[in-house]
Amino acid sequence: MKVLVIGAGAIGAFYGSLLAQAGAEVSVICRSDYDQVKQHDFIINSQALGRWNFTPAQVLKSVTDLEAPPDYILLCTKVVPSVDRVELIRPAVGRNTSIVFIQNGVGIEQEMLEAFPNNEIVSGLAFICCNRINPGEILHLAYGRLVLGNLPGGVSRKTMQLCELFNQSGIECGASEDIVTGRWQKCVWNAPFNPLSVLSGGLQTLDILQTQEPLVRSIMHEVCDIAAASGHPLPDDIVNINIENTYAMPPYKTSMLLDYENGHPMETEAILGNTLRAARRLGVAAPHLESVYALMKLRELKLTDRRTERRRRGERRKAK
Amino acid sequence: MKVLVIGAGAIGAFYGSLLAQAGAEVSVICRSDYDQVKQHDFIINSQALGRWNFTPAQVLKSVTDLEAPPDYILLCTKVVPSVDRVELIRPAVGRNTSIVFIQNGVGIEQEMLEAFPNNEIVSGLAFICCNRINPGEILHLAYGRLVLGNLPGGVSRKTMQLCELFNQSGIECGASEDIVTGRWQKCVWNAPFNPLSVLSGGLQTLDILQTQEPLVRSIMHEVCDIAAASGHPLPDDIVNINIENTYAMPPYKTSMLLDYENGHPMETEAILGNTLRAARRLGVAAPHLESVYALMKLRELKLTDRRTERRRRGERRKAK
Repeated sequence: MKVLVIGAGAIGAFYGSLLAQAGAEVSVICRSDYDQVKQHDFIINSQALGRWNFTPAQVLKSVTDLEAPPDYILLCTKVVPSVDRVELIRPAVGRNTSIVFIQNGVGIEQEMLEAFPNNEIVSGLAFICCNRINPGEILHLAYGRLVLGNLPGGVSRKTMQLCELFNQSGIECGASEDIVTGRWQKCVWNAPFNPLSVLSGGLQTLDILQTQEPLVRSIMHEVCDIAAASGHPLPDDIVNINIENTYAMPPYKTSMLLDYENGHPMETEAILGNTLRAARRLGVAAPHLESVYALMKLRELKLTDRRTERRRRGERRKAK
Repeated sequence: MKVLVIGAGAIGAFYGSLLAQAGAEVSVICRSDYDQVKQHDFIINSQALGRWNFTPAQVLKSVTDLEAPPDYILLCTKVVPSVDRVELIRPAVGRNTSIVFIQNGVGIEQEMLEAFPNNEIVSGLAFICCNRINPGEILHLAYGRLVLGNLPGGVSRKTMQLCELFNQSGIECGASEDIVTGRWQKCVWNAPFNPLSVLSGGLQTLDILQTQEPLVRSIMHEVCDIAAASGHPLPDDIVNINIENTYAMPPYKTSMLLDYENGHPMETEAILGNTLRAARRLGVAAPHLESVYALMKLRELKLTDRRTERRRRGERRKAK
């Protein structure tokens, strides 16, 4: 079984390494960490599963360097407007390639379905805390469960095979007949905590919850309303369960906050923008989500201004 | 006519100096800039009115140092939870003292009316851009109009006298029979632009308006709804007029943003908290305002955390 991981950051390298351990031939596309990984492999340090090296079958700088199309593409980039996911994977997609994306957000399916109507498209959700702490070095902190399902619905034989391989490698992987509902479920947590952690200036989940639980709940209920209107009703107790689970979690920095602190683009559109566009299309009121999204856009505008200003100052220095 | 200015920052020093120019005997309570002002007076630099020195009749460190109660107290501190406005002025309030506050926010009248039931309470609104740029040095950038009115309503003879004195000094001062409605009108602008400038990380008014006008309008409409429910309906076109005026203004840093950037307490409660508490009491929905207020509280929590952390680190260094 040949697997190509595109976007070999924390998520891609971690799950790719597990498939390799279970016997798959796993290659990776690796841009920023290419030299490090080519010479020294990936180092995976998992508090639950131990420490291991991951030597990919091939380490490539670009998708176009690949010789033959793989059985599976594992697409693990962030979903940000600057990355055209379709064009990124197109050169590697063969007739029998299943396209599996393990990514955040809602409403990110359609462009894949339209671009590759004859390929199996598999949507994946990862419930995991894991960070890239150095080039080629991944720290797996907690959790790891994966859920896979075909788009627009169902679970194919090839998807089941991939699930089994993950399960053999020591990580729990479930199959879902209705993965789109799963994406909405995950959004119930992501939609409040990600932007609130950034807009607060860096608070962790527990501080947010302890002081502004009503706002968190309001946003969660709005996501539930939008999901229901889009044909994916969520369980009645999902908000309470999410609140309880977050109280029980150790204080946690969201992925958006980590991106923000590291000056990386944030998944504002995938998580909030798409949710809100669905609300507007379906005529669902979501004023809290709307406020938080607008504030994230202002925050991003300010960050862009600051970068432009810094670049301009840099140029002026050079000109002297 | 004896006037005591309490809180001689930019607003207090500017308006106090005008009353002195018009012939009043103006003393000031001045804490942080005491030494500078005692020795070198205030310097007022106004782009519209010129440059002048303001030598107060008395410069005092504390209200308790005052010998006789004044005819007017001009209270110009910020309205923040750490300042007890009633206790701050109490030692200076005589039988015939009019208490005039020139301050931001809504719902800040009641405690004054209750604490001084036998004194005239005058509520003042300043439409002004003016900053303290150095100890004792005030820069008046633009505008300056003042509106005064008695609480709970009407305009007394003594308030008219004060208005006239301001008008003689070269600044426009109007009298309002319904100053509480005026406070709500001012809140229409303050409630969106102040917190949005902070939560965006420092954007000026024009950037906010050009990219997120719908959120600005939503918050403005919510303030109008709350004002109407509290018995102070605002003109129908007030939102449009505020939007148009702000487009016509030069890009502007709000007072809350200046406080934020200088590490000073912000008027979150006076402007947003009180507005939202009125909404809850009156059963008016205000979800956008609610979101922005909750985010400001998270931002303030993060700032407090950071200060505590810094203090702790300082102590550790000392202990070494």
